[in-house]
Amino acid sequence: MTIAKAITRLAFLGDRLVTTGAVRDQHGQNETYYPDTPPDAVAFPETTEEVSRILRICHEEACPVVPYGAASSLEGQHLCTSGGLSLDMNRMATVLEVRAEDLNCTVQPGITRLRLNEELRATGLMFPVDPGADASIGGMAATRASGTTAVRYGTMRENILALEAVMADGTIIRTGTQARKSSTGYDLTHLLIGSEGTLGIITELTLRLQGIPEATSAATCRFDSVENAVNCVIATIQSGLPMARIELLDEMMVKGFNAHSGAGLPEVPHLFLEFHGTPAGVVEQAGTFGMIAEDFGASGWQVAEKAEERTALWTMRHKAHYASAALGKGKHLWPTDVCVPISRLAEAVLQAQKDAVALGLTSTIVGHVGDGNFHAGVSVDPADADEMHRAEAFTGALARTALRLGGTVSGEHGIGLGKQKYMAEEHGAALTYMRAIKQAFDPKNILNPGKLLPPTNEVPHAAAE
Amino acid sequence: MTIAKAITRLAFLGDRLVTTGAVRDQHGQNETYYPDTPPDAVAFPETTEEVSRILRICHEEACPVVPYGAASSLEGQHLCTSGGLSLDMNRMATVLEVRAEDLNCTVQPGITRLRLNEELRATGLMFPVDPGADASIGGMAATRASGTTAVRYGTMRENILALEAVMADGTIIRTGTQARKSSTGYDLTHLLIGSEGTLGIITELTLRLQGIPEATSAATCRFDSVENAVNCVIATIQSGLPMARIELLDEMMVKGFNAHSGAGLPEVPHLFLEFHGTPAGVVEQAGTFGMIAEDFGASGWQVAEKAEERTALWTMRHKAHYASAALGKGKHLWPTDVCVPISRLAEAVLQAQKDAVALGLTSTIVGHVGDGNFHAGVSVDPADADEMHRAEAFTGALARTALRLGGTVSGEHGIGLGKQKYMAEEHGAALTYMRAIKQAFDPKNILNPGKLLPPTNEVPHAAAE
Repeated sequence: MTIAKAITRLAFLGDRLVTTGAVRDQHGQNETYYPDTPPDAVAFPETTEEVSRILRICHEEACPVVPYGAASSLEGQHLCTSGGLSLDMNRMATVLEVRAEDLNCTVQPGITRLRLNEELRATGLMFPVDPGADASIGGMAATRASGTTAVRYGTMRENILALEAVMADGTIIRTGTQARKSSTGYDLTHLLIGSEGTLGIITELTLRLQGIPEATSAATCRFDSVENAVNCVIATIQSGLPMARIELLDEMMVKGFNAHSGAGLPEVPHLFLEFHGTPAGVVEQAGTFGMIAEDFGASGWQVAEKAEERTALWTMRHKAHYASAALGKGKHLWPTDVCVPISRLAEAVLQAQKDAVALGLTSTIVGHVGDGNFHAGVSVDPADADEMHRAEAFTGALARTALRLGGTVSGEHGIGLGKQKYMAEEHGAALTYMRAIKQAFDPKNILNPGKLLPPTNEVPHAAAE
Repeated sequence: MTIAKAITRLAFLGDRLVTTGAVRDQHGQNETYYPDTPPDAVAFPETTEEVSRILRICHEEACPVVPYGAASSLEGQHLCTSGGLSLDMNRMATVLEVRAEDLNCTVQPGITRLRLNEELRATGLMFPVDPGADASIGGMAATRASGTTAVRYGTMRENILALEAVMADGTIIRTGTQARKSSTGYDLTHLLIGSEGTLGIITELTLRLQGIPEATSAATCRFDSVENAVNCVIATIQSGLPMARIELLDEMMVKGFNAHSGAGLPEVPHLFLEFHGTPAGVVEQAGTFGMIAEDFGASGWQVAEKAEERTALWTMRHKAHYASAALGKGKHLWPTDVCVPISRLAEAVLQAQKDAVALGLTSTIVGHVGDGNFHAGVSVDPADADEMHRAEAFTGALARTALRLGGTVSGEHGIGLGKQKYMAEEHGAALTYMRAIKQAFDPKNILNPGKLLPPTNEVPHAAAE
């Protein structure tokens, strides 16, 4: 029962089992501050049956298996920290069926969101969830991703009807149906969404689709303080205006965009906005928003009417990660996120800004504030122990601020490696039941071991007895 | 370890533990064809801590515990078929907090949806999920209820942010937060929603709220065939029109309304509609719908402008259960529901009508057709073995039609006692993982035993090894 023996037995994959250094190294990289951790081997399955056969072998040999998509996860979810097999899903990246008449489609997990939307374009439909990165749909499901449009269309949680997954021992299951709702049995679909590859490997997804809106318009405006910008967001959401996107950029984030892409924006807090609807509806929405924004002293209203202008705007926004990194002048980025009730958003954002200053850190704030979700991006040098310690203190303080305000330690990045330390604080006794599920589904702990659940010496479930 | 011993130990509840015949009988009744099954005792807890203490005792004594709310479940979910304790949640029926600024509230499980909405009215907010019956919010969560407005606002699945629950051994857990989204750990909230009291007893719910729409208008129209009515619904949903309600009544259902409430409607298929939005938006939506409906030969357009007229309309609709029963002239009603992809709706409805005729049964069809969900209500005499056999054949055929068309055997009534026989067909290997969760969470099988999961001699999870 060794990793080596599992890899020997995976030889049936031929040249789709790779143990060369370059490929292993590539699969051990990440975009944040986690140390690179190459797997022992990389497998490139092409069918669900192959995934099942791989898992059967790895289960017998107790070999760790970590699913790999676009490697855009921000809490190290795809890193093989216990060694073993990186299961690269990029050869399972096909749109299997588009059912335009039912507003859904079935895809393989390796397809990325941009490619999916390209393939959908001719149907007049779109898959709206947009976490910024061109992530794989399977990875987005596994981390319960969301992003800029969740305020209008929901997160991955609301946009998946059904899954196919391969479980730890190779069993293939199907959850959900093509119907829009169901009351038949335990909701395994939602249990797998957000499980970060620790309960099963997603091999197929049936997604809800939306009609591409008849009209879209985007705009930006600026505020003299983050507080005014955030209070404008709160008032907008409370008014019931169906915002398609409403993104906050603090002054430091704007500096980052100027440094990274020469955006030339005044270095004050901004909101980036998008409206979807009928042509008349979009105008009406923008007008209503304008009236709300005026109350909070908004200025510099810029409308991006044309599709190219909107693309430029959101492309810039989606580079927030790199723009934040640019401020660090060659440093790594430690990205973190929290989500709070909308009424506590200003308090949370201001506290985060204050904490960063107090700790002597450079940090941007950018966020999907319509959901109460925002990100901080701290520049760090992993070789600078003191700076790493301060960054850790910063993310810890932010996580605890979120919990104190009735929120959660992650709105969309997930737990992975970095946030296990807050799981007990957020979930309390519920954590025992999460452990019980893991134990029941993956008794040998081969599926993404060391992720999501904090280490423990407890016997699962015993704590509740 | 007996039920009797558990009841003795529950004496701490004083007069809130009742073993008198009348109260037990009342808790053993149901509105459908299931035989009455009184519990051994009824407990009326007033706090979460009391629920916890009750469960700790029942766990030690292996005494079945079945939560009881408004008793409006339609698949026998609240019946104590293994004896034991009926846990009546009606003394835990308070609105604990309304956070209008965050569009959410926290309530106890015993409050009913109508009372909740009365208490919310002054805030301008509403809890939109409306299954027809004035069900308890806890029961609605436990059965993953939905109803007439789910097409616009989603089901219980989409409208619960957080739960408090007492688990089998008395452990109190909290799932979710007040934030609108989270990516931290396994989604126990959605695991409990729809678990029909078999995994934990819900003691507190944090619900998403919606602004009461600025304008509401309702309307009815009729069609010369069910096929035209359903095809009109399909075209409407595909057009993206944000219907608030779109309900189908087949000719038999209309007959039932005429018999039950003297509705005086022409006995042909009808759609009942509701539009929510701004005053201008509502007019625009109704106009767009009118143009679509014209293509399918709609006639007899009646608008219910005033609030009283709308109330009368939906009150009539919500009496569908009793109106269907009225056609049976004193018989019981065997209600069933399925949900299919919207494109297969006409096929499913027409097949159901044909099956009822072929089996010599009187059945109504009424449904939340915007979701692809509809109900059939068959009049049965439980003493007539042949008729019961034919009704069983009808519901079985309908369930299998739904599965054949890519749908589910229940859109909202759930599994309870009556639909366990279809669980393996719908879920296949996934059923093993549902059993594994039940085994991990409730190893002594005290929580609503005999519901949701079909009986088995398998060792849980072993089937997947």
